Amino acid sequence: MYIGVDIGGTKIAAGLVSNEGKIIKQKSCSTKAERPFEIVVKDIIALIREVSIEAPPEKLLGIGIGIPGIANKRTGRVHECVNLGWRDVPLKAVLEEEFKLPVYIENDASAAGLAEYSIGSLKGTTNSIMLTLGTGVGGSFIINNRIYSGTNGLASEVGHMVVGDNFYRCNCGKLGCLETFASALALIKYTTKLLEEEPDNQSPLKKYVCNPEEELNAKIIFDYAKTGDEIALRAVNRLVKFLSIGISNLIYTLDPEIIAIGGGVSRAGDYLIDLLNKEVEEVKIFKAVPSARLVLARLGSEAGIVGAAMLCRFN
Amino acid sequence: MYIGVDIGGTKIAAGLVSNEGKIIKQKSCSTKAERPFEIVVKDIIALIREVSIEAPPEKLLGIGIGIPGIANKRTGRVHECVNLGWRDVPLKAVLEEEFKLPVYIENDASAAGLAEYSIGSLKGTTNSIMLTLGTGVGGSFIINNRIYSGTNGLASEVGHMVVGDNFYRCNCGKLGCLETFASALALIKYTTKLLEEEPDNQSPLKKYVCNPEEELNAKIIFDYAKTGDEIALRAVNRLVKFLSIGISNLIYTLDPEIIAIGGGVSRAGDYLIDLLNKEVEEVKIFKAVPSARLVLARLGSEAGIVGAAMLCRFN
Repeated sequence: MYIGVDIGGTKIAAGLVSNEGKIIKQKSCSTKAERPFEIVVKDIIALIREVSIEAPPEKLLGIGIGIPGIANKRTGRVHECVNLGWRDVPLKAVLEEEFKLPVYIENDASAAGLAEYSIGSLKGTTNSIMLTLGTGVGGSFIINNRIYSGTNGLASEVGHMVVGDNFYRCNCGKLGCLETFASALALIKYTTKLLEEEPDNQSPLKKYVCNPEEELNAKIIFDYAKTGDEIALRAVNRLVKFLSIGISNLIYTLDPEIIAIGGGVSRAGDYLIDLLNKEVEEVKIFKAVPSARLVLARLGSEAGIVGAAMLCRFN
Repeated sequence: MYIGVDIGGTKIAAGLVSNEGKIIKQKSCSTKAERPFEIVVKDIIALIREVSIEAPPEKLLGIGIGIPGIANKRTGRVHECVNLGWRDVPLKAVLEEEFKLPVYIENDASAAGLAEYSIGSLKGTTNSIMLTLGTGVGGSFIINNRIYSGTNGLASEVGHMVVGDNFYRCNCGKLGCLETFASALALIKYTTKLLEEEPDNQSPLKKYVCNPEEELNAKIIFDYAKTGDEIALRAVNRLVKFLSIGISNLIYTLDPEIIAIGGGVSRAGDYLIDLLNKEVEEVKIFKAVPSARLVLARLGSEAGIVGAAMLCRFN
């Protein structure tokens, strides 16, 4: 069995995971990211101890960690986690010293893709991609049955693939990043922009901009699009258009067997997949050549822990 | 030693190549692509016989073919070569039957990248990319020391990565493909557009649009840009801007060690590399993390034959 730790900006979750990817026991705590690395890592150590306390030591094969940032897999040093304020910290060395077990560190989106590859929608593939459409857009590449994270850990950062011009800048400073078109936040921003530009529009979505108590989210916008609301449809169609460009770009670069769509936006379900399939088919270049199947990701919030744990198995 | 065959729309070139990638003997003939596959393949067979006639049969280890299209590497069937009018033809089977040698088929841009990987600018890398900026934009990915061509042979078609909006459609039907910004043809089209839009501009490039005898090419435009000609500079800066977006997209998907730039546009030399480095640095997200080096490709027209031959070695 393995330990999987999913470090997020607000929560750290750890789990004891069977070799087959089943969570046996899990615990979590607040990240309190304003604290220095040396203190946060003590909480991580305590969580790992808690979840592994009943595990027979000889069966515990390793610790996998998903981080919201970039790490060097060889040295195990974390290059940068903006949300945690970490820069060049020796996470692997600290944990290996503490537990005398091999420690594997990977970007959290990549780890979530590995969970899908191990027990979810990407199982059985050789080359595949998972896109996580949440607040941002995360990517995970499986190439030749392994996570592919590139030379310096920068690979699969597909949220920052530029796919066109946009009306606001990405957090990274660039204009036109996929995540400014295809994330939940992007969908909300564009819907709000439409509602503000058309004060006479009678869309029921109006209440979400007039009333600060009603919080708009991607699910609500998709639900209204399904009922035919014009503003919601325009916003969803724009997301679909640019997400399809991103997917098409990935097909003509990595040509995977499957692209799985996860994260908050994927709660729109088959409605989203159908729209995407139609649009991707339309921009297909070689009509006679088969290309990637689009599917919904299967795992939910457990993907973080399971994927991190599976780093020990597929490294 | 190996046989390498480079099949182009106008010319077919074959060579006998040493295990180290040196061309020992070469021959070529016109493709005459209007003829059916069954006839063209006879010319290919004749060329292979000619270049291999003095080679000791026991030393001849295989035949590699670069095609201007998409093939299924497992079956060896060519899915589609638009310029040759080929669709679903059994190229591998025909040649293996004829020569009783293993035959490897690959996209020509991928093969050219393999030549750079074997004896040129990408030698010694594990993960690297070659971009060929010619009439179109071709790509070649080396991943884990092998050509990566994806599930269906669609990988590394980076010329069709959409990076923005453009004023004309790509041959593939899409709007905004990298090759409509960063190919030699794209540079010529945009320069011509600027000159036509500004009939009063005194740029010496004007003679190329007024006089059909003077043919404009990428080299001329770059040479004028180096002298400070304003029209040429604007055209070159636009190419650099969008090519940098494409390169940045590749860094945040594949994160290679090196990206080599070849093809006609690369004759602009270090001038182009310096402009690209500056622009790519500007859109860099994780400033503290090293990313791909940009270099000029080293091989010229021999890359086609050498790369095809090397398919036998790195398969």
